[in-house]
Amino acid sequence: MTATIIDGKAVARAIHEEVRREAEELRARGCTPGLAVVLVGSDPASVSYVTAKQRACEEDRIESFGHSLPGDSTQDRVLGLLAELRADDRVDGILVQLPLPRHLDEKVILDAVPVQKDVDGFHAENLGKLGLRDAEARFAPCTPAGVIELLKRTDVAIDGAHTVVLGRSKIVGLPAALLLLRENATVTICHSRTRDIAEHLRRADIIVAAIGKPDFVTGDMVREGAVVIDVGVNRVDDSSKKSGFRLVGDCHFDSVAAKARAITPVPGGVGPMTIAMLMKNTVRAARARLA
Amino acid sequence: MTATIIDGKAVARAIHEEVRREAEELRARGCTPGLAVVLVGSDPASVSYVTAKQRACEEDRIESFGHSLPGDSTQDRVLGLLAELRADDRVDGILVQLPLPRHLDEKVILDAVPVQKDVDGFHAENLGKLGLRDAEARFAPCTPAGVIELLKRTDVAIDGAHTVVLGRSKIVGLPAALLLLRENATVTICHSRTRDIAEHLRRADIIVAAIGKPDFVTGDMVREGAVVIDVGVNRVDDSSKKSGFRLVGDCHFDSVAAKARAITPVPGGVGPMTIAMLMKNTVRAARARLA
Repeated sequence: MTATIIDGKAVARAIHEEVRREAEELRARGCTPGLAVVLVGSDPASVSYVTAKQRACEEDRIESFGHSLPGDSTQDRVLGLLAELRADDRVDGILVQLPLPRHLDEKVILDAVPVQKDVDGFHAENLGKLGLRDAEARFAPCTPAGVIELLKRTDVAIDGAHTVVLGRSKIVGLPAALLLLRENATVTICHSRTRDIAEHLRRADIIVAAIGKPDFVTGDMVREGAVVIDVGVNRVDDSSKKSGFRLVGDCHFDSVAAKARAITPVPGGVGPMTIAMLMKNTVRAARARLA
Repeated sequence: MTATIIDGKAVARAIHEEVRREAEELRARGCTPGLAVVLVGSDPASVSYVTAKQRACEEDRIESFGHSLPGDSTQDRVLGLLAELRADDRVDGILVQLPLPRHLDEKVILDAVPVQKDVDGFHAENLGKLGLRDAEARFAPCTPAGVIELLKRTDVAIDGAHTVVLGRSKIVGLPAALLLLRENATVTICHSRTRDIAEHLRRADIIVAAIGKPDFVTGDMVREGAVVIDVGVNRVDDSSKKSGFRLVGDCHFDSVAAKARAITPVPGGVGPMTIAMLMKNTVRAARARLA
């Protein structure tokens, strides 16, 4: 079997298009969706992520409020800014770019983002709501929400499928498992302490790899006809590149693609979905203003 | 292999003893632990649960505040009582006995129990914190917390074990899965939509059965030497009993015990742990007053 390559860029584009239409509609009703993006310090990767998010806002007709604080800002300064944003009616979503400088307490700062504006879905209450199937889950974290969208929009049946999630981080693995459970998948969560990861993977109908190890999943660990979603983004040295590195996923693409029915590439798979889902969460937050 | 029978009553007794000592210590420091128990209506099973919880309070030296409202109480009446209890410094924990009469919105009422007094662990934020391994989980729901205690106090190694949780309810299955993940188990969550439950169960080192189907798990579904925790409590007709019924678990005891290394009986296994963990959560809440 040669795998279908799931085009994350195309799916993300379709979502951005839907978001833009929804934002226009909200604007016409006097409710301009707004996203505040808080950056502390000037880490180059963070600056580039923040820039990409602000550009996406512009394209999707969401107003963006950029707040750059110096890298030596005190915790109180950051909390003060968050208090202002909490009270600001134009701000539907608040995003604090991670990682924060080390002297700041990430947990305290993320807890200061109110649940209603937590478009990153990192608040404990939003995570808990993912698990409570009778509760309305307000915001799912963007990357795992993107994983589900990719599966749905490529017609992968999740209901009843045996899904193995590799990794249990609060940003990807755990919420991905909760979202898959909501969709009636049977879910196995494997992680660094799992004894025989390969054995678990070989039984999966769907694999979601988010373990942060380059080329970890190889073709021999994948059942013929499985669907593989690769969330990993790892830098490996490559002297043939000008930058000196290239990006690879958690899956060894060629050998896995030879077995799988469908697979996401890295880059161009899950990556573009994260910002698309952030935009989607933001218009959702704005719509709640009208309710 | 003939299974060791895990004596839930004995483990629960040990926990009650620890709680009582801790309550005495807190009282000596001027901080009497208090639990408010709210009962709406007079469902006989609910009355008997509430009575058992109040008796446990008495034995464990926790002050109990009983509040019985008529079955036709309005939602506002219940919310008003919860507002009083929220403000009452003597009340460390608030328990709303479920199920509530149908005209009341369970979700709204449980959300009105503040996170800090949610000794049942049913609030979305407390559930989310179970998943965030870097966050302090304030209160785990009592029954799954009891499952973990039983495993630990019978020297079952959870770290690295492959655990299959049967059932995904918000009260047992899902939080049990999150707690097992915290303890570094590899966790598979099976439920009514799972295609081949028996195949999953046969691979488990530890089984936590919470699916609510009498005698569902039979010996042929269990690996030789597995540990089986049976959370199910099901009534089946039995004309030889005065009551006309007997209680059985989700596991067919005799056939499973013939394969397992250890198993909990029903009754006398997980059952007694629930109230013990409720008492433990209550003294924990009281201790937070001193911090």
